[in-house]
Amino acid sequence: MAEGENKGLVLLDFWVSPFGQRCRIALAEKGVEYEYREENLRDKSPLLLKSNPVHKKIPVLIHDGKPVCESLIIVQYIDEAWPDRAPLLPADSYARAQARFWADLVDKKMYESGTKLWKLKGEAQEEAKKEFIEILKLLEGELGDKKYFGGDTFGLVDIALVPFTAWFYSYEACANLSAEKEAPKLVPWVKRCRERESVSKSLPDPLKVYEFVCFLKKVYGIE
Amino acid sequence: MAEGENKGLVLLDFWVSPFGQRCRIALAEKGVEYEYREENLRDKSPLLLKSNPVHKKIPVLIHDGKPVCESLIIVQYIDEAWPDRAPLLPADSYARAQARFWADLVDKKMYESGTKLWKLKGEAQEEAKKEFIEILKLLEGELGDKKYFGGDTFGLVDIALVPFTAWFYSYEACANLSAEKEAPKLVPWVKRCRERESVSKSLPDPLKVYEFVCFLKKVYGIE
Repeated sequence: MAEGENKGLVLLDFWVSPFGQRCRIALAEKGVEYEYREENLRDKSPLLLKSNPVHKKIPVLIHDGKPVCESLIIVQYIDEAWPDRAPLLPADSYARAQARFWADLVDKKMYESGTKLWKLKGEAQEEAKKEFIEILKLLEGELGDKKYFGGDTFGLVDIALVPFTAWFYSYEACANLSAEKEAPKLVPWVKRCRERESVSKSLPDPLKVYEFVCFLKKVYGIE
Repeated sequence: MAEGENKGLVLLDFWVSPFGQRCRIALAEKGVEYEYREENLRDKSPLLLKSNPVHKKIPVLIHDGKPVCESLIIVQYIDEAWPDRAPLLPADSYARAQARFWADLVDKKMYESGTKLWKLKGEAQEEAKKEFIEILKLLEGELGDKKYFGGDTFGLVDIALVPFTAWFYSYEACANLSAEKEAPKLVPWVKRCRERESVSKSLPDPLKVYEFVCFLKKVYGIE
């Protein structure tokens, strides 16, 4: 069986995870069928623990019994395993390095900074707000007047970032900020991304995310 | 001029940086000539600040005036820009994902954990020691009886990890541990790597690293 053929493709995931959503978007862009398995993160499945013994985290993509972990690595794997359609990384080596740089920046900064927005209060939250706005402005600057981060083609950086936009409503409600006001050029980009079926069917309703964040706040005892 | 040709290749670096050493090893493996520029990290050059405005960190590889930042992204860029010799990533997509996973693990855990070993004292240092030993054992398990992490070919994971071995003497001296005792299989792997000219000429003398760590401890006021 040739590499990339779909003999048993399973995604271990959790509905609200921006990291899992990246994988769903990439698989949808490639038009690859797979089995979605929702994990209970408070009682992880033996398959998850066996497939990702180092981090014990979703998402994990299991292809013919072989696990791939870490969302950006999974997206690159998907791009390389199904190379004949919908390229997610550019062909040019410098453009690829740039795409990896910005996706890596989203990975290193966005989740941590966003989590602080709903977890912290007072001055610490104000600090987190400054940091979050700085990241938004950096990303807006990189997007500029392009259609997508890589230019005319939807790709790795869009896939890395767009799931977080389903969390923006929660960040805004918890930390009293307006992403739209801070980085207005990101708004039409989000709209363009959401017009793609791969994105619209992979991202949750921002109000459902907010419900989930409110649930987490209760769990953590945050007023 | 074809892509990959050496029209002005500059590496902004700092001698003791394991991240910079990765780039030096990758460039040496490819046999590519470049200009090495040592940065003063307490007075960063305008070129560094302009080339890496987001992180303001070395290493930066500037190729025909275009900067690439973040060491693992630089190593992958080098591999893709000079694809005709010494492949640093395997050709198979699953093996590539595995190489990225382990290099990413080294990136996320090794520096932070190692820094704690010389910066912290008492219980916090004991915690860091446990964490460090856990990472060593994970890596040793992944290496197994292979010649290099990717099998018979020296590649991305070796390049990601081997610079830290020049710091092991410092970690051991500061935190009273023996990397050799904890992960004996890594020792012959380090030896094999150091037999490569690309590695031996890129890594500093462990005693010089220790001098530098002692200097840092003074700067931070650590006894």
